[in-house]
Amino acid sequence: MLNDEKWFTEIDAQHGSALSLKLIEKLHEEQTLFQRIEIYETEWLGTLMVIDGCTMVSDRDNFLYHEMMTHPALYSHPNPETVWIIGGGDCGSLREVLKHPEVKRAVQIEIDERVTRLAEQYFPELCESNSDPRAELRFIDGIQWVKDAAADSVDVIIVDSTDPVGPAEGLFNEPFYRECFRCLRKDGILIQQSESPLFDMPLIKAMHKAMRQAGFSQTRTLFFPQFIYPSGWWSGTLAGKSDLTYFREADARNKPFATSYYNAEIHKAAFVEPEFFRAAMA
Amino acid sequence: MLNDEKWFTEIDAQHGSALSLKLIEKLHEEQTLFQRIEIYETEWLGTLMVIDGCTMVSDRDNFLYHEMMTHPALYSHPNPETVWIIGGGDCGSLREVLKHPEVKRAVQIEIDERVTRLAEQYFPELCESNSDPRAELRFIDGIQWVKDAAADSVDVIIVDSTDPVGPAEGLFNEPFYRECFRCLRKDGILIQQSESPLFDMPLIKAMHKAMRQAGFSQTRTLFFPQFIYPSGWWSGTLAGKSDLTYFREADARNKPFATSYYNAEIHKAAFVEPEFFRAAMA
Repeated sequence: MLNDEKWFTEIDAQHGSALSLKLIEKLHEEQTLFQRIEIYETEWLGTLMVIDGCTMVSDRDNFLYHEMMTHPALYSHPNPETVWIIGGGDCGSLREVLKHPEVKRAVQIEIDERVTRLAEQYFPELCESNSDPRAELRFIDGIQWVKDAAADSVDVIIVDSTDPVGPAEGLFNEPFYRECFRCLRKDGILIQQSESPLFDMPLIKAMHKAMRQAGFSQTRTLFFPQFIYPSGWWSGTLAGKSDLTYFREADARNKPFATSYYNAEIHKAAFVEPEFFRAAMA
Repeated sequence: MLNDEKWFTEIDAQHGSALSLKLIEKLHEEQTLFQRIEIYETEWLGTLMVIDGCTMVSDRDNFLYHEMMTHPALYSHPNPETVWIIGGGDCGSLREVLKHPEVKRAVQIEIDERVTRLAEQYFPELCESNSDPRAELRFIDGIQWVKDAAADSVDVIIVDSTDPVGPAEGLFNEPFYRECFRCLRKDGILIQQSESPLFDMPLIKAMHKAMRQAGFSQTRTLFFPQFIYPSGWWSGTLAGKSDLTYFREADARNKPFATSYYNAEIHKAAFVEPEFFRAAMA
């Protein structure tokens, strides 16, 4: 039943599990220079983008990931004027970032232009801020972008990438974090999606270690639910040049935009570490 | 691939999704007077119990549910001496409750004795407190138990049931909550598992309403991840005779037992409401 054409199934062999989503129809499929992209119309989640067999973004539940990969980092920075999004080709993180009036320039650096072109066609809501004069879309390798960038040129870097295999592999290591550290201004913050707290503690631990070795004085992980990602529970890990417990709480309480998940209390709650996490990081 | 005997698959037709778990072998299957119980050895989750086709409890991730269905409620009560667990036949909630030194008597009222007998055999860790002199195992209908019980006879009632279909249906309505209210002493707290915040907001809203109509002055929902339940995100809803924001925080910080998820900060974080939840409840 679940391996026929009425279901999309993503198997996580390492964790002996699989999530299947009921399909209405396949809308598109192509092999780009970098990866295989599929777009489906699903029964409950609306439109779904799949890259190399992994669910990436759906209409119905992307608000969790996009809000939690952007607002906590931006409200943890005293004045986030310049923001880079490495990856993030669906433009959902860019949209959230541009909701912040402090942001003067947001650059999305996506290696695969086809992801964005397909998002424009199939996820128009996520792309509704692409023509904001503060937005800049670059279609080049994020690793190269960071290498070529000037020191002290950015306030927040959001690494909104696929899993650490394939094109995104080079985004999960100390040399990359070191370049990010160099590019970040005083008080600069890097946030990277860091997989499932239930499945991927070794990766999260290694990420903290590599970020600190790259020069960041503080690292913190935040937690949020994400139905279509393995285990249904996801995380983002922040690296800061200064105090990551800083929080523009009054600004978050008076945010001039609507959210579906994030609010000032969620900001604080998301950073709370479960016992097993504390034990693993100790 | 996923509908062969190497995978257990639970389909959530209403939400067009399905979770599959890779099996090593089926350990047991039986039709009891009430339901069909299957026990599997899985590849990643260890032993898994399935009731009427729905995943109930696994070795690897049950700590999330059992800790969050017990410790927040018990640390929200000033002195939880008597606790009832309605359902909870796997004995995992009973084990957590008995970790609290304040508890003098914990009664587990499970309608289906076979659930407990199979848990004793296949989940011995969850049953390790069954012989505690404070523990009492009753195999009768929880609805009848509550009806027959004396007024003002219990401090905390934990409804650790299956979904609101089949044997558990009568546990999700005002007449049942009214009997709970009658049985609870001053400061008494009822907590009930309340399904997925992503999938089941209508149920959660209806539960709050029914609890208040039954006489409870306060209701609150808490949130936690739960990989093997639909959407990977779960909730418990509390009803209180008095202030549900009361928290024995110092006791929770100095808890005389280990946990894997719960701690004093998680206690507070779990009650934080996402924006969509606030909007739905307003």
